[in-house]
Amino acid sequence: MSPVASPESVRRHNLSLLLRHLHHSGALSRSEIGGALGMTRSTIGELVADLGGRGLVLAGDPARLGSPGRPSLVVRPNPEGAAAITADIAVNSLAVAVVGLGGQILHLARVAHRPRRLAFEQTVEDILKLIKSAQASIPAGCWIAGLGIGVPGVVRRADGLVHFAPNLGWRDVPLGRLVADRIGSGLPVLIANEADLGTVAEHTWGAGVGVDHLIYVASDVGVGGGLVIDGHPLVGATGCAGEVGHVQVNPMGVHCRCGAIGCWETEIGGPALLRRAGSAEKGYQPEAVARVLRDAAWGDPVALPAVEEVGRWLGAGLGGLVNAFNPQRVVLGGYLGDMWPLVERIVQAELRVRVMAPALEVVEIKPAQLGAEATLLGAAELALTRVLDEPTLVPVRAAEGGPA
Amino acid sequence: MSPVASPESVRRHNLSLLLRHLHHSGALSRSEIGGALGMTRSTIGELVADLGGRGLVLAGDPARLGSPGRPSLVVRPNPEGAAAITADIAVNSLAVAVVGLGGQILHLARVAHRPRRLAFEQTVEDILKLIKSAQASIPAGCWIAGLGIGVPGVVRRADGLVHFAPNLGWRDVPLGRLVADRIGSGLPVLIANEADLGTVAEHTWGAGVGVDHLIYVASDVGVGGGLVIDGHPLVGATGCAGEVGHVQVNPMGVHCRCGAIGCWETEIGGPALLRRAGSAEKGYQPEAVARVLRDAAWGDPVALPAVEEVGRWLGAGLGGLVNAFNPQRVVLGGYLGDMWPLVERIVQAELRVRVMAPALEVVEIKPAQLGAEATLLGAAELALTRVLDEPTLVPVRAAEGGPA
Repeated sequence: MSPVASPESVRRHNLSLLLRHLHHSGALSRSEIGGALGMTRSTIGELVADLGGRGLVLAGDPARLGSPGRPSLVVRPNPEGAAAITADIAVNSLAVAVVGLGGQILHLARVAHRPRRLAFEQTVEDILKLIKSAQASIPAGCWIAGLGIGVPGVVRRADGLVHFAPNLGWRDVPLGRLVADRIGSGLPVLIANEADLGTVAEHTWGAGVGVDHLIYVASDVGVGGGLVIDGHPLVGATGCAGEVGHVQVNPMGVHCRCGAIGCWETEIGGPALLRRAGSAEKGYQPEAVARVLRDAAWGDPVALPAVEEVGRWLGAGLGGLVNAFNPQRVVLGGYLGDMWPLVERIVQAELRVRVMAPALEVVEIKPAQLGAEATLLGAAELALTRVLDEPTLVPVRAAEGGPA
Repeated sequence: MSPVASPESVRRHNLSLLLRHLHHSGALSRSEIGGALGMTRSTIGELVADLGGRGLVLAGDPARLGSPGRPSLVVRPNPEGAAAITADIAVNSLAVAVVGLGGQILHLARVAHRPRRLAFEQTVEDILKLIKSAQASIPAGCWIAGLGIGVPGVVRRADGLVHFAPNLGWRDVPLGRLVADRIGSGLPVLIANEADLGTVAEHTWGAGVGVDHLIYVASDVGVGGGLVIDGHPLVGATGCAGEVGHVQVNPMGVHCRCGAIGCWETEIGGPALLRRAGSAEKGYQPEAVARVLRDAAWGDPVALPAVEEVGRWLGAGLGGLVNAFNPQRVVLGGYLGDMWPLVERIVQAELRVRVMAPALEVVEIKPAQLGAEATLLGAAELALTRVLDEPTLVPVRAAEGGPA
């Protein structure tokens, strides 16, 4: 429970409630807002005026906003009112975006990058260059909440230390501090694991909308994951919850890059599929994985059993996680989402054996929906939280009038 | 976020905040309350008067309350003001208690019970008899919030259906509905898994006080568990989260009572220890487990390796859970707590290999503190939640004056 509420804190709470609701739901009529949030017409009017004065929402006649079918005046988040700069440091590419309120991508640049062993300092330079050109694209008057960056590794949230990002060849690099020093404007810099951001993005805009208990598991090279518990992303004590790829599933298994043996990652990661399919490629190649999936779909006598074997391990590991968390939905990202139609029967059969009935009867499995943009959108949510929690951080615009 | 707050809802929120704080912290001076909750002296005075008028707290001079060292007037929860009736259906015994505010046990009866295959209807009759004599002991004027019952099985919280309680021989028995029908007074009847209740109890009164991210793992026959996430017990979508005993850790393992193979329970449960120690006892005998632990402490050449082997599996499984949840603390209950001094080194070595550094650097492992009463205390917390959330449910006492 939060501490004692004063009338002023109630008002700020309500501003936050309304802005977050619009950010997640898009354009709504005043009566839809009233129905969803239990606010009176006059309260909504005051709050919309306040948020509008800060440039955070646009209110007006539906025709002007381009949704002519709506029966009453609508309010919608203003993507050019507040935004986040976000970056995705992936294994094969770097991307930077500007994402406005409502999850609208205002600017996006993705460049190919050396597939292996990105030198840390060089990567920071490259990201800073992309950020600079993103900053040039920010609309006038747009309030920037912060910079969110996703990396494929284990991150300590407090200071953005990347403890371990094996596919970048990074160990204990101070990404958060270095970027903050180089940007130097006092802008908050938030670093998070890419799968945690994928979880947030799929929960906010993708295959997990409206779900309070969610497990997200994604793989390309490694296996990452994230959890939503009672509607909130699980961060954990130090910001690295969701490392489900490093649950031991096979004590007779192979060495994992983390140093342990038989982690789930070694059985269901992209390289595990290639290994089982006898692929000549060493390590991870997205094209090679796609080829195995395509061959398996045609019933290829090597590819199909390889996919099915990965499916059994996927089901075995998911069974344990479903027993531990009792989620409503499991969202599969990365190549696991592409593989889902081929392994659905096998995974469901594993779950039927392993999962306690009251947990089994509610859980649904779905492929992820947001594809390559998931990390950027999740990073935006992370950085925008500041303004969603406290809309009064954004100053009232002089032109719009109202008390400054 | 909760919906819009009115002044009246702010007041009820504050009553709840204060009562819960006293329930968890015990006797406090007004200045300690002010410091902890950020309330003014006059707000505290009004709230204490309200709660006192309902008989939920006792306020007065410290000498009268028996804590003469305190410098100022103290307020404390009144265990005879509101209480829960709680029951623990264990494998070898049945217990019923009356637990008052502040976690004080006002009445407790535990009777030995047939160790195996309790017939469902007979158990309900036996529990009802114990409840009847507990009801006779309830102090006059004490408001009973509800009846909380813990069972060693998988429970659907919504209706108290016990889906699977292998050590009681129960499958799909409507425990909640049957008890509610037989009690018949409209008293809420809440059924939960015993390990979930142990989690709540250890978090509220035992080895997990003040910890926001906690994993509880306990074993006697089976292996149960529970999670605290951001300060709140994880319930899951249908109330059966925390079934960590049924995470697969060994695909080459033995059949589990749940139907799957190689569940964690089959490697670290009490019967697994006895099996490894070559014990003649079939199944689970608490005395036999205690004997193996005692022998191992003396370095017995059969018992010690058996304990160490269980310790390795304990560490392997915990490593995965710590990676998934990033907790601050792991609390070991049942025989695992007793075994802890013997396996601490082995478990810590496993965690060092398996757990990501930012998670490893914060996690502590401790044995549970509440012993046999954990289930009863956790069940009380479950039932008392109603009055802790909404103290105005308890009517103002006529004798004390104030608006009725």
